[in-house]
Amino acid sequence: MRTSIATVSLSGSLTEKLTAAARAGFDGVEIFENDLLASPLTPEEIRARCADLGLGIDLYQPMRDVEAVPAEEFARNLRRARAKFALMNRLGADTVLVCSSVSPLAEDDDALAAEQLGRLADLAQDFGIRVAYEALAWGRHVSTYDHAWRIVETAGHPALGTCLDSFHILSRGTGPKDLEGIEDIPGDKIYFLQLADAPLPAMDVLQWSRHHRCFPGQGGFDVAGLLRHVLRTGYDGPLSLEVFNDVFRQAEAGPTAVDARRSLLMLQEEAGLGSLPAPVVPTGVAFAELVTPDAEPVSALLDSLGFARTARHRGKPVELWEQGEARVLVNTGPAALPHPRRSTGRTPVDGTCLAAVGLESPDPAAAARRAEALLAPVLPRRRAAEDAPLDAVAAPDGTELFLCATNRPGLPNWRADFEDVAHTPAAPAAARIDHLSLTQPWHHFDEAVLFHRGVLGLDARESVDVADPYGLLRSRAVTTADGGVRIPLTVGAAPADDTAHARHIALATDDVVAAARRFAEAGGRLLRIPANYYDDLAARFEFADGELETYRELGILYDRDAHGEFRHCYTRTVGRVFFELVQRDGGYQGYGAANAPVRLAAQHAAR
Amino acid sequence: MRTSIATVSLSGSLTEKLTAAARAGFDGVEIFENDLLASPLTPEEIRARCADLGLGIDLYQPMRDVEAVPAEEFARNLRRARAKFALMNRLGADTVLVCSSVSPLAEDDDALAAEQLGRLADLAQDFGIRVAYEALAWGRHVSTYDHAWRIVETAGHPALGTCLDSFHILSRGTGPKDLEGIEDIPGDKIYFLQLADAPLPAMDVLQWSRHHRCFPGQGGFDVAGLLRHVLRTGYDGPLSLEVFNDVFRQAEAGPTAVDARRSLLMLQEEAGLGSLPAPVVPTGVAFAELVTPDAEPVSALLDSLGFARTARHRGKPVELWEQGEARVLVNTGPAALPHPRRSTGRTPVDGTCLAAVGLESPDPAAAARRAEALLAPVLPRRRAAEDAPLDAVAAPDGTELFLCATNRPGLPNWRADFEDVAHTPAAPAAARIDHLSLTQPWHHFDEAVLFHRGVLGLDARESVDVADPYGLLRSRAVTTADGGVRIPLTVGAAPADDTAHARHIALATDDVVAAARRFAEAGGRLLRIPANYYDDLAARFEFADGELETYRELGILYDRDAHGEFRHCYTRTVGRVFFELVQRDGGYQGYGAANAPVRLAAQHAAR
Repeated sequence: MRTSIATVSLSGSLTEKLTAAARAGFDGVEIFENDLLASPLTPEEIRARCADLGLGIDLYQPMRDVEAVPAEEFARNLRRARAKFALMNRLGADTVLVCSSVSPLAEDDDALAAEQLGRLADLAQDFGIRVAYEALAWGRHVSTYDHAWRIVETAGHPALGTCLDSFHILSRGTGPKDLEGIEDIPGDKIYFLQLADAPLPAMDVLQWSRHHRCFPGQGGFDVAGLLRHVLRTGYDGPLSLEVFNDVFRQAEAGPTAVDARRSLLMLQEEAGLGSLPAPVVPTGVAFAELVTPDAEPVSALLDSLGFARTARHRGKPVELWEQGEARVLVNTGPAALPHPRRSTGRTPVDGTCLAAVGLESPDPAAAARRAEALLAPVLPRRRAAEDAPLDAVAAPDGTELFLCATNRPGLPNWRADFEDVAHTPAAPAAARIDHLSLTQPWHHFDEAVLFHRGVLGLDARESVDVADPYGLLRSRAVTTADGGVRIPLTVGAAPADDTAHARHIALATDDVVAAARRFAEAGGRLLRIPANYYDDLAARFEFADGELETYRELGILYDRDAHGEFRHCYTRTVGRVFFELVQRDGGYQGYGAANAPVRLAAQHAAR
Repeated sequence: MRTSIATVSLSGSLTEKLTAAARAGFDGVEIFENDLLASPLTPEEIRARCADLGLGIDLYQPMRDVEAVPAEEFARNLRRARAKFALMNRLGADTVLVCSSVSPLAEDDDALAAEQLGRLADLAQDFGIRVAYEALAWGRHVSTYDHAWRIVETAGHPALGTCLDSFHILSRGTGPKDLEGIEDIPGDKIYFLQLADAPLPAMDVLQWSRHHRCFPGQGGFDVAGLLRHVLRTGYDGPLSLEVFNDVFRQAEAGPTAVDARRSLLMLQEEAGLGSLPAPVVPTGVAFAELVTPDAEPVSALLDSLGFARTARHRGKPVELWEQGEARVLVNTGPAALPHPRRSTGRTPVDGTCLAAVGLESPDPAAAARRAEALLAPVLPRRRAAEDAPLDAVAAPDGTELFLCATNRPGLPNWRADFEDVAHTPAAPAAARIDHLSLTQPWHHFDEAVLFHRGVLGLDARESVDVADPYGLLRSRAVTTADGGVRIPLTVGAAPADDTAHARHIALATDDVVAAARRFAEAGGRLLRIPANYYDDLAARFEFADGELETYRELGILYDRDAHGEFRHCYTRTVGRVFFELVQRDGGYQGYGAANAPVRLAAQHAAR
């Protein structure tokens, strides 16, 4: 029989995946939508590449949340489908996968599902395409293969069949008896068969216990609630951490022990024990500091971005660049973080790196006292006799956090260590730093989140998985309630990724198109985003005339959430740092995570 | 309140763990039994070290499967407890953790449990020790904190209390209402409080689907059974692999694609499709081949082990060492595997390594045909014009597998390429190679298991986790039914471990004591095993007079399963290879996995 593999099963760029599949002797591939969107090849070029490699494109996947929805929503779905079918004609793919809906809009109405799938198949037929409908194990109303087949049978359409997937069938614990029903489906109405295995059991409480415990505050249990009950009994024995965790077993013991004690200190505070200094939540970003062996490339980048060199440090080779409220320090020095590193065998950071962050603090001294009480290494207050005495602590990954009171009377002012230099004021393109994305070492991700929550009083947002072409990344933002400070912490899927992903500084602008044009006109180069991404945007959203063409031309990405819209674009990477220009409208809260796979693929391609 | 941490929560040797806990400011530790067993420090030295560091030993843990068992079993448990209480007196630890039984011998009888726990507490009291009884979430009959407390209350013993553990309580989904019962326990009867958090949900089907799918044959689903049903419908579309897997996302695409195709070929064979050459199961190990830049150290080791240098290759710097049926080739050459490596960025192997294995095959040519059909790279049959034409293939990790017909008429004989050299025959200490332990690169463990199953027709045994001080290892043996070929495949918990663990050759002997003595007398050095390990053996098993002292003197480890007994000891490591001497009695089937943490800790300490 013909053999195929889904591109999502392999690592790398789409080209690497196709080459690997062909070399291994597969006859065809399922092209996963994100792999296409992230590819710089046009659909016609992908088709030709597959033909050269002797690969058929056996499936394009997936379409989601199509059926059993209100009429207006279904009309939008047909519009999207038309664009995807046109794309499939360009690709030369004749079967599309439609997964059973997980949308809250979907109704539990098989007749409606059959009718709408029939209409989708009508449209597909016009393009010479057939629709394979598959039950996801977690589908909202349709989650079993026989249910999906009943709907297909009801529709009775010549271009509508079913797709069977061993994972979705077997992961539900479907027994041998239930499987016999497969034989009632006519073979020519099974349009596709997807195969996967999976380890059993997925996870029982024993496995959970032995591999995935973590320190209080790093998981989902209400440990403080339990502790409060225990304290009411009069218990006065030890609070002891017993944590079986695969990562802690590998990580260096010293930092893990500090992380553990910090967790207990925070737990005691939450349970009403102990007396830590209260959190002093920062209100904004005072500056980001880049350390670089050669200031020239990063200075050119800052200049293109609309920054002006406004001041220099009185005693050190550090320059201040400003525009609006955004400030970047460029520190010419040894190309590594400026403090002792842990002996974890990590690759030392080379090239330009984001090594320190200044946070605007209502009370820097009190913030430092809390940090110290929570075991953060406190850094020397003065580097030289004439410097202002600044409060600063080291984050677990070594990043220096300066607690600042910029230009506030009566408090030590880092700005006073700088003397102004002559410069030509430019019309600023950006208003302030929107967020700082800080990649973290592999073993210390949960520690970093706990640190920023506990020491700085930031809130931790949902953890999200982001697909990089060479492995999954995990990202979790710590922020203030009003978004004045936003720090997405990101970690790679393996230690090899510790230093593989650069950090970045995102600059907030009211008009990302103007900011991007200004940057390009000043000689800056924005990251190129594949055309396939914009074709998909056109299928998903409606834009004003010319708007999408502008984004396509400049490399601006687009996202939307329940609150508002997000437009953003990226500079090239200098050393281990790049910049992002972002425009938030209407209260959008995220960071464009939906676009991250495309961005990461483009960054890999640009290397 | 006083703060403690269980040593199992931190990585490294016991000394490293204690130091890290003290530096982070903990007041005490729970000493986990395996950490003590693996430590070269005596209990008195551990006590002194803790005192120097300002750490109390707040808990010794655990004792398991103590209560509600038949009288004879309970008598054995008291004997074991007596030894552990004596040990705790030496440590200066006054509280012991007893987990609710998971033993199939345990009866659902609270009165019996209370009575036996009371008798255990009587004994403990004699040693000045108190017993903290804790409900494991997966306890056989006692799995909730209130149930454990009822039993403690029933016993009404002044040296018996309960231990509460947030993981075991909260992982059962215990709600706020149920937690209030904690307050009914008198605080002075809560002897200990263990705290851990855990991510929620542990694993739903969506997470399982998106992160943990694997290729057919690598998991637990009956994918072939499902495929047979689909084939009966007349389906003739593609067999397509759709696998979302965190590891595959990182691993190089080329080898993953080959692994994927091999999985489909095996699946088709299992479902009655296709026509692969039948498996030719090897019957034994013909030889192990070491490649070394300097033959001197490994020759000395082989000599001490009782091997004699019997022959040398006619055209290459390869020597044959033999004793009984055990044969080792020593190939002086470049210090790396002798075939092209994949471009995975793995550290090249340096020093002496186990690079090739000769397997005795009933039909080498047929075995090679199957291997080739299953996409194993076939190696050149002859290296030189005058060599015997040997069938050989490369395993996924690059190990060369020679399919041999040693001294069998009418078949190419690798032995014929060697000419005998004069040697003094020695009384052999070992009879043959018992097993070859082959560490695998991180990303390719499931691939290696599938390869050995499919290509060589070996059976895969249960996968086991082994605690190395610096991370968990996963090990899975592939064997013939009769044990003629046994190959444990092992992988570390992170890529950094790819090359951190040496491979080893285990030699079978009928008398491991004699073999160990012979080795020592010939100047060999056996791995030293901590005295604590033998104290524990004495508590767990009864030995003949003097037997345990002999093991202690030589460093022989002991294990027992339902079938029989296992005694084994280890040489020092040369380059990336070491040897093991093993004595299997009564049909013991394993590899001493219970002893692996102690052995691994000793090897780290010996570095």
